[in-house]
Amino acid sequence: MDAKVKERVIRIATDLFLRYGIKAITMDYIAGQLGMSKRTLYEIFKDKDSLLLSCVQHVDEERVKEVEEIKKKTTNSIELFLSVYQRSLQKLRCTNQNYFSDLKKYHPSVFVYYEANKEKNLQNFIMLLEQGMNEGYIRKELNVEIISFLLSAQLELLIKSNDIYLNKYSFMEVFETIVMNFVRGIATPKGVAFIDEFVNRNSI
Amino acid sequence: MDAKVKERVIRIATDLFLRYGIKAITMDYIAGQLGMSKRTLYEIFKDKDSLLLSCVQHVDEERVKEVEEIKKKTTNSIELFLSVYQRSLQKLRCTNQNYFSDLKKYHPSVFVYYEANKEKNLQNFIMLLEQGMNEGYIRKELNVEIISFLLSAQLELLIKSNDIYLNKYSFMEVFETIVMNFVRGIATPKGVAFIDEFVNRNSI
Repeated sequence: MDAKVKERVIRIATDLFLRYGIKAITMDYIAGQLGMSKRTLYEIFKDKDSLLLSCVQHVDEERVKEVEEIKKKTTNSIELFLSVYQRSLQKLRCTNQNYFSDLKKYHPSVFVYYEANKEKNLQNFIMLLEQGMNEGYIRKELNVEIISFLLSAQLELLIKSNDIYLNKYSFMEVFETIVMNFVRGIATPKGVAFIDEFVNRNSI
Repeated sequence: MDAKVKERVIRIATDLFLRYGIKAITMDYIAGQLGMSKRTLYEIFKDKDSLLLSCVQHVDEERVKEVEEIKKKTTNSIELFLSVYQRSLQKLRCTNQNYFSDLKKYHPSVFVYYEANKEKNLQNFIMLLEQGMNEGYIRKELNVEIISFLLSAQLELLIKSNDIYLNKYSFMEVFETIVMNFVRGIATPKGVAFIDEFVNRNSI
């Protein structure tokens, strides 16, 4: 099978899963959208799980590439953090909330990959926090492992919880509150001033 | 049965549960510490659950009384928040971590009371946040329900979680990080200045 065809399948399927959730999109529907037979699709990916795994990996690779681009354009840890956050906001605005819950609920084997990946991201995040401390933007007295745990735990809560507050408010609203409160909480006064300036400049 | 005796049982049992956890303390042991027979203790409280419920209520009543005292001595919302936090720190330093996990694990009927009580506390907390906004100490653009949900969710996580990070770091250390990051995160620059001043003055 042509690598280009496989790439196209992944690109189109990723887009559909993100926009409509995973459960709502059948292999049949994907084949239809690609203009190929269901049989041909199953020749490329033996089942929905294996296609989904490729999609989740694709999303992650794209993220890594874009973060590398952002890194080149930013001058300090807070600016990098906020710029990556801004990118996440843009992505999440186009992501169906069911994407995350479907992944966990119906595709546990793929969710394992997603979780493992988070551990790697956590390590990168800890390095970023340490950089921020050296730059004087993040409070030096903090324990980086505890604070990164607290951020990831709150974000996880957002994905997993069915709590009344999370039903009452939108995913995006809670996500924004978590991230902005977190970064202000860990920042030095110099860091907070930079955050305010960034928020005004970028109107986030 | 004399109300004074009942009160004494609650006071002594509360102290034992808080210091050693709930599972470790048997009705037998409590009777021994009170210098009464097990039979007499069971005449006052028909089982451990009913004694424990009275203890949990007692802890809560004490807390409410002390918060009222603190209210009289403080001049703004952040000072009240931090003073209550300081009181909690002192209490938690003398509280066996098993107290919370035992409550949830072995006494679900009492835990229900504890949870219901939290809902009431949340409402008080929301009022405090609104007061802080009017005083100019807390950022006005925040949604008070979302932020109070996020604080209580993080504290719950601390009680319930068996996560690796929570095993690696002490309960107290994570508690302090949650609370101090939270309050700095929601504060205005004027609020942050007050927090710094309070922390220096009270060396917390």
